Amino acid sequence: MAIKIYELCGKDETRLFSPHCWKTRLSLAHKGLDWDTIPTQFVDVAGLEGGEKRTVPTIRDGDTVLHESYQIACYLEDQYPDKPSLFNGEGGKELSKFLISWSQGTLHPLVAQLCMLDIHNLLDDENRAFFRKSREAMFGITLEEFDQKFAKDNTNLVKAMLPLENLLKRQPYLGGDTPLFADYVVFGPLQWLRVSASHDVMPKEGAVADWFARLLDMYDGIGRKASAGFTAA
Amino acid sequence: MAIKIYELCGKDETRLFSPHCWKTRLSLAHKGLDWDTIPTQFVDVAGLEGGEKRTVPTIRDGDTVLHESYQIACYLEDQYPDKPSLFNGEGGKELSKFLISWSQGTLHPLVAQLCMLDIHNLLDDENRAFFRKSREAMFGITLEEFDQKFAKDNTNLVKAMLPLENLLKRQPYLGGDTPLFADYVVFGPLQWLRVSASHDVMPKEGAVADWFARLLDMYDGIGRKASAGFTAA
Repeated sequence: MAIKIYELCGKDETRLFSPHCWKTRLSLAHKGLDWDTIPTQFVDVAGLEGGEKRTVPTIRDGDTVLHESYQIACYLEDQYPDKPSLFNGEGGKELSKFLISWSQGTLHPLVAQLCMLDIHNLLDDENRAFFRKSREAMFGITLEEFDQKFAKDNTNLVKAMLPLENLLKRQPYLGGDTPLFADYVVFGPLQWLRVSASHDVMPKEGAVADWFARLLDMYDGIGRKASAGFTAA
Repeated sequence: MAIKIYELCGKDETRLFSPHCWKTRLSLAHKGLDWDTIPTQFVDVAGLEGGEKRTVPTIRDGDTVLHESYQIACYLEDQYPDKPSLFNGEGGKELSKFLISWSQGTLHPLVAQLCMLDIHNLLDDENRAFFRKSREAMFGITLEEFDQKFAKDNTNLVKAMLPLENLLKRQPYLGGDTPLFADYVVFGPLQWLRVSASHDVMPKEGAVADWFARLLDMYDGIGRKASAGFTAA
């Protein structure tokens, strides 16, 4: 039976923008597993699978329900050991956590600055109201004020990715010759930006741009098939 | 026969300040190997082991001579597979490279801003002249001008280490329950600062400070035995 994955979407169910869901989507593709996506809007997240305060991604694999992309990756690694590894050993599993911490602490806030209002605009009325209320409580200002605070270019993002750029000049993936979960951890926020932003602020040149293009094409191009905000606008 | 390690020192041969040499020193300790240190000053580095343009650390293990802390760690891992692993598998070996790129791109420049002139002052006259000439050519300004550009507090360094701080709140080492080479990669620049800086700018509280203290005490306290600049001044 195929694994179910609940993924965050906009009013258009093909508009899958969550960085965390992309990490799980690529983890499933990496393992070569069958899965069915269940597009899920913000207001439906907390009640998924009868659970309280669930988050996305959530997966159901037979009787097992779990959430959080790293926990899911660890589960898939243990459950499907004969499929390609997401970590290549315990050291890779541990050090992936630094990539998560770095990506979420450094890249995610910068991506959010570039497309927070665009995400709002992808939603239907009910979800817009939910999103606005929760984010404005978080930021202490309106979404429009938040949006106006930040220049809509990728200067800061490109600068923040320099450690990645310098590494990817010397090898095709963070995982070496082939990607690991760590690659998907960093792919997540860039795909979030690509799918959400109403203006094209993707890095176009350099090692990170080339690496991102390679990942978009991987697994029959599931990354590239997700329409980009700026072309689909 | 013990492994020889050539380590950068000041006029005082016990003042071992190089972040890269510390990575190798702790790699050798981690593997539980016997080694002899050969304190080496700047002007003697290029001619080490008869080589041209060698760098530190350089090690000699029997007939094998090699340099660069990551290459040395890979060599030790391959050569001494029965000793504790520095990587815990191929994934850990690959992802250690991101830690290197992040540490060198983010932390090293900030540490250099805090103690560049202090390093100069640790050297003898001949090495001071060498260091001044090479660094001033690199920076395009005098060491004193470089020194005056930067506030001598750790605000920027602490901020840069936030991804590390957030991770180490949840686990004792980057490697998980025990350290891996990745831990030494980040220990390196902090020990460089501790040994070199004439003022105490070490983080004192929080998960990074606690982790650093644990590493200083490890392996019979070889890290802590290295005198700190601000206490030894």
